[in-house]
Amino acid sequence: MSKVRADISVSVDGYVAGPDQSIDNPLGEGGEGLHDWVVALEAWREAHGKKGGEVNASTQVMAQRQAGVGAGIMGRNMFFGGGRTGPWDEAWTGWWGEDPPFHVPTFVLTHHPREPLSLSDTTFVFVTGGITSALEQAREAAGDGDVLVHGGARTIDQFLAAGLLDELELHVVPVILGGGARLLDSLSPQINLEQVRTIEAPGVTHVKYRVVR
Amino acid sequence: MSKVRADISVSVDGYVAGPDQSIDNPLGEGGEGLHDWVVALEAWREAHGKKGGEVNASTQVMAQRQAGVGAGIMGRNMFFGGGRTGPWDEAWTGWWGEDPPFHVPTFVLTHHPREPLSLSDTTFVFVTGGITSALEQAREAAGDGDVLVHGGARTIDQFLAAGLLDELELHVVPVILGGGARLLDSLSPQINLEQVRTIEAPGVTHVKYRVVR
Repeated sequence: MSKVRADISVSVDGYVAGPDQSIDNPLGEGGEGLHDWVVALEAWREAHGKKGGEVNASTQVMAQRQAGVGAGIMGRNMFFGGGRTGPWDEAWTGWWGEDPPFHVPTFVLTHHPREPLSLSDTTFVFVTGGITSALEQAREAAGDGDVLVHGGARTIDQFLAAGLLDELELHVVPVILGGGARLLDSLSPQINLEQVRTIEAPGVTHVKYRVVR
Repeated sequence: MSKVRADISVSVDGYVAGPDQSIDNPLGEGGEGLHDWVVALEAWREAHGKKGGEVNASTQVMAQRQAGVGAGIMGRNMFFGGGRTGPWDEAWTGWWGEDPPFHVPTFVLTHHPREPLSLSDTTFVFVTGGITSALEQAREAAGDGDVLVHGGARTIDQFLAAGLLDELELHVVPVILGGGARLLDSLSPQINLEQVRTIEAPGVTHVKYRVVR
């Protein structure tokens, strides 16, 4: 059966973005550094139309991550670029550009209805019915494929708290940000995980967990 | 030159003890599970006068941890067993028993003066002058050896914030506790780390960081 998976880059103190996030600085103070390891990869650069880059232990992690994904889910801020509130400005097509790196139907959680938006081979579908509705639609779109929950922190936490996540992978980056958007924030009661595997790579440790129910 | 090191077991959401800590339950709800990986080791059991146990990838991590340690530092609660307040009850010799597993001079941070206490070959020295004074005394006692900061969370955070820590090792255990004593709590500004090495072991991932100054 297909899985519901989430993976995200996180600081050693558990933040997925640094303090003082804004429209101009959606990843907050120091947050850019959380993605240095992936932006340096040849595989990432290729997917974003760039040349060069590294091949290292993170390459297979990213390949595994992409394999078999049939649909995606993300919070509104992750589509929008963060920091904006209120209804959609329909002229704004998200910060992923004209050729978003998803290539599968991607469901965006929002309180504001909007028509689906197709950019190259990625279609963003805006869902106002919450995570259960988004997951239902994503599962149907994914068929036999997995559903990847992209983030942000609050969206992943919602899926975890609702018992809807099968796998969580953390890309732990060697920095202490001291504030910002925290992942795994006040989730209770206790959630047991099983450590599936750990991979050490330059500037990051990848740890994959299975959620135990 | 000798190093100042800290290492501690931590949940995936960053807690070194679970919620609802008390005298009867100093590690809080679910906190015991943070130490399952170490308690299962033959090396740990031997050091605590017990037979049997496992040899696995964590064994070398614990051996490296103990190697070259000349002195230790811990917070009052870690000596005391947690949950107690007020001046010392001198009859209470800590929860480490008659043969504490330290075997080197161990400096306990406290606001309440007390005469040194020797139990087998471990001497506890009570320091009222804060972390700087404790580190000075520990360094002198350690000679060429390293100083190991045992915890708890607040003590390690104090050393990090003051720029006094050279190495931090986290033993990340696959559980989300949802509350309790948080490590790396609101440390700012940003502290840069260098990932020294990662070791995958049964039920735990060991990640060692160097603090970049």
